[in-house]
Amino acid sequence: MSKLFIVGTGPGDLDFLTPKAKHSIEVSTDLVAYGLYLDLLGNLCEGKTHHDLPLGEEIGRARLALDLAASGKTVSLISSGDIGIYAMATLVFELLDLELQGKEVDSNISKQWLDIDIEVVPGISAMQAGASRVGALLGHDFCTISLSDLLTPWQTIEKRIHSAGQGDFVISFYNPVSKKRDWQLNTARDILLKYRPASTPVLIGRQLTRDDEKIVITTLDKLDAKDVDMFTLVSIGNSESRYILNGNKEWVYTPRGYSKKL
Amino acid sequence: MSKLFIVGTGPGDLDFLTPKAKHSIEVSTDLVAYGLYLDLLGNLCEGKTHHDLPLGEEIGRARLALDLAASGKTVSLISSGDIGIYAMATLVFELLDLELQGKEVDSNISKQWLDIDIEVVPGISAMQAGASRVGALLGHDFCTISLSDLLTPWQTIEKRIHSAGQGDFVISFYNPVSKKRDWQLNTARDILLKYRPASTPVLIGRQLTRDDEKIVITTLDKLDAKDVDMFTLVSIGNSESRYILNGNKEWVYTPRGYSKKL
Repeated sequence: MSKLFIVGTGPGDLDFLTPKAKHSIEVSTDLVAYGLYLDLLGNLCEGKTHHDLPLGEEIGRARLALDLAASGKTVSLISSGDIGIYAMATLVFELLDLELQGKEVDSNISKQWLDIDIEVVPGISAMQAGASRVGALLGHDFCTISLSDLLTPWQTIEKRIHSAGQGDFVISFYNPVSKKRDWQLNTARDILLKYRPASTPVLIGRQLTRDDEKIVITTLDKLDAKDVDMFTLVSIGNSESRYILNGNKEWVYTPRGYSKKL
Repeated sequence: MSKLFIVGTGPGDLDFLTPKAKHSIEVSTDLVAYGLYLDLLGNLCEGKTHHDLPLGEEIGRARLALDLAASGKTVSLISSGDIGIYAMATLVFELLDLELQGKEVDSNISKQWLDIDIEVVPGISAMQAGASRVGALLGHDFCTISLSDLLTPWQTIEKRIHSAGQGDFVISFYNPVSKKRDWQLNTARDILLKYRPASTPVLIGRQLTRDDEKIVITTLDKLDAKDVDMFTLVSIGNSESRYILNGNKEWVYTPRGYSKKL
């Protein structure tokens, strides 16, 4: 049976690659992934056929993975982080759904997609890597919001930011800025300042767990898109999140309220 | 230097235990954890001193881990899932925060807590295990809400459920019910039915990735607390989440909207 693994490889450091993800890649003959992700995996990818498409061709990449698996290959479709979170997994199912509905999906062998054994392998997502690096920022109810308005109308995103503010969720912004997109993050900040204090702790984590990792802890009023790029995660505490300084070591955590019981 | 690893071991199956978590446990002399979690880890824990405290004594467990590390041991404080998400990590920092403020923390050596080298190791959380098992339910903006009102007032939780409904987030409920607590989940369901269709796909995942895993896909109107226990994750799709059936294989995914571009 043809097989497609949809694999999240974690934030970057191979110490966070699960055995399940590693094994999935090892048994695959063909890897479909943006080149940078494969570079991070080092010699794990040796001897396998690489298929790369540029950033922005996500639909093509999902279709290619399905076509390769349908043709009998054992394929891993790979992204960093958790491939189920703002990544390629959902595209595969969108395409499968269209095929099941008999819609045009631009593939000669899409009928065989339905015979593929599909397995999704989750990975450590950036928000988890970031929170753990600075303590326990995700210690209570949290949400994630993508600030990319390529596929989601800005009014939907803005509504979600307001909802997250009203609900006092810890918020992780994925895709906070891109080369062509820079105003959304500051707009989001200004909205959240209506709901939580200017002193709310904020994590800016770039290239988390990678060699060139850079982590900055700041406050909501000082958050600025100029300090953020597309390799950066931005996580914003809730109204109870705490910044603590022990010697020169900074921590940020969101309490669940246990200390009230002491 | 005394060392405390705060380690998430993932949903259960050791195939999801990261090398980092494994290594942290391997180099530790002392493990602090609820017994069940250690059972899942098998012989990885052999030859180490186990410290167990009953469920409900979370503060004691965090304090014990700090005290052991302060006394010079290399300690792993362990929970399943991601220890930074509704788990023990934030308690350690709550205690550390109190000590830094000079408050009473009921430890003879709490001054030495401040010298401990602390490292938090994230793990795959239940929502990720669940979403991957059924496809890509976390494919777009999502949130988590704990339904336990032991530490958080119900009115705060209820407000968050409304906010999550208004923002149309995919929602994962942690601690959906317990032996003494059963009404919150059905109340949450009734709130959400005001915001999204009765046909919204719902994942009920029990003992995810473990030998006795049980997964049920249902709809929001059919969600009932009687089908859920404390080993269960409940994840609710947003208004666009889709259920698809391919032969006898069920999938659920939340689209990002790529198919509109096809």
